[in-house]
Amino acid sequence: MKTWRTAFLWLLLCALLGAGLPAQAAEPSAKSSMTQIGVIDALLAGGYDGSVAVRGLPRFGDIGLGTFDALDGEMVILDGVVYQVPSTGVVRRADPRGTTPFAQVVRFKPGRAQPTPENVGLKDLESWLDKTLGDTNVFGAVRIEGVFTALKARSVPRQQKPYQPLAVVAKSQSVFEFAQVRGTLVGLRGPDYVRGLGVPGWHLHFLTQDRARGGHVLDLTLGSGTVRMASLRRFELLLPEAGLGGLDLAKDRAGELKAVESSR
Amino acid sequence: MKTWRTAFLWLLLCALLGAGLPAQAAEPSAKSSMTQIGVIDALLAGGYDGSVAVRGLPRFGDIGLGTFDALDGEMVILDGVVYQVPSTGVVRRADPRGTTPFAQVVRFKPGRAQPTPENVGLKDLESWLDKTLGDTNVFGAVRIEGVFTALKARSVPRQQKPYQPLAVVAKSQSVFEFAQVRGTLVGLRGPDYVRGLGVPGWHLHFLTQDRARGGHVLDLTLGSGTVRMASLRRFELLLPEAGLGGLDLAKDRAGELKAVESSR
Repeated sequence: MKTWRTAFLWLLLCALLGAGLPAQAAEPSAKSSMTQIGVIDALLAGGYDGSVAVRGLPRFGDIGLGTFDALDGEMVILDGVVYQVPSTGVVRRADPRGTTPFAQVVRFKPGRAQPTPENVGLKDLESWLDKTLGDTNVFGAVRIEGVFTALKARSVPRQQKPYQPLAVVAKSQSVFEFAQVRGTLVGLRGPDYVRGLGVPGWHLHFLTQDRARGGHVLDLTLGSGTVRMASLRRFELLLPEAGLGGLDLAKDRAGELKAVESSR
Repeated sequence: MKTWRTAFLWLLLCALLGAGLPAQAAEPSAKSSMTQIGVIDALLAGGYDGSVAVRGLPRFGDIGLGTFDALDGEMVILDGVVYQVPSTGVVRRADPRGTTPFAQVVRFKPGRAQPTPENVGLKDLESWLDKTLGDTNVFGAVRIEGVFTALKARSVPRQQKPYQPLAVVAKSQSVFEFAQVRGTLVGLRGPDYVRGLGVPGWHLHFLTQDRARGGHVLDLTLGSGTVRMASLRRFELLLPEAGLGGLDLAKDRAGELKAVESSR
């Protein structure tokens, strides 16, 4: 009996060690990283067919942003929960069976929380974030908890085929204006060299503190807040199994992206 | 005794299962993928400091290409071996303790070998590869075994600090001309949207069959050959731990890249 008990303990130890190994292999360090589903130029070209299941996104990280199959609203990922801001502006938890054509999910291992500057507009906030991040030739991610004196967010309506380019669709966006609102910003930053593939500069999505409202940020004045921030040196791109054939991705769409990201 | 033997067998089974798991976790599917060390615009800007050890490259795949710390020649990875083509043109196995500022390594799970067209120049070969690959909006990789009627390859001399931009360095490249030579091409293809980050279009490096000579391909006529090919839908970018601060990566260097890739 005693030998069996010893053997059982060995087995248990061995199984535990075995079970521990895959996690180590998948995440070799505690560093932050970004996984991107799809390509921004494909989205700009009207490639709105989802390729990766919403239920699969949290395994790539805990914060993120993106959109949904058929461009059905803005995506915000917070604490591993995937929120959907449809064009009504009323936030819901996204259907895990749904899919996404474009999302950026960050395994977020930020530094300590620090205060943001007070009473700053979007441009000044972004400049301050750049300066605080230091090296803007790598990827960046922030999570800001704050009180916003004013905030303008948008979402886009679900599309029908044949899909129109994003620059056309953005003209029918819904815009939501908030005043003295408490909430959370998820901000991701791509370096200049990701043009075509990702989003150069800051890209911010917002959720109110009660997670009831939000959207893609067009403008804001941040009254006060705290920020947690990480530099990302590992970036993973996952392209659709079906490929991206049939989309015109040769064109330089930098101008279209700028218009779509900031059109007010 | 018998119980101990049984326990030992269980332990062995358990250890084997445990050992098997990390590999599965790191490689969730048998699909081909590309891992890129560094950013092409940083290399063009003169960022030649190595960031990842040569000895670490084979764990990202079995074929690849790139360069070395201080731009010390062309890199070709074949069958998991890292070859270095210095500016003398005499190929050696790269020092595993060396480092690289830029490399693309592919976990290559190609389709069946098929014959290439015969007596084709570089442009026609590339067009045929595009057509055979099908979807050029995803990444591609080929390995071609062939007899080349003519082949022109180059390498670049090891640089001293302060580093000059690649477009300047390329003017002092060594060019090697081959006739009726048997050897292997490693070719990687980036989609148009990787401009800035990677290399759009085909990028080919060559090694002779005896692995004694080679370089970055500037021109060729392929007499006959066979090709194995894979589409890649997973791309991983690893940036230096030290970041890329201090390099001007805002500039559009597409013209410089074209000049450097093909200057004859």
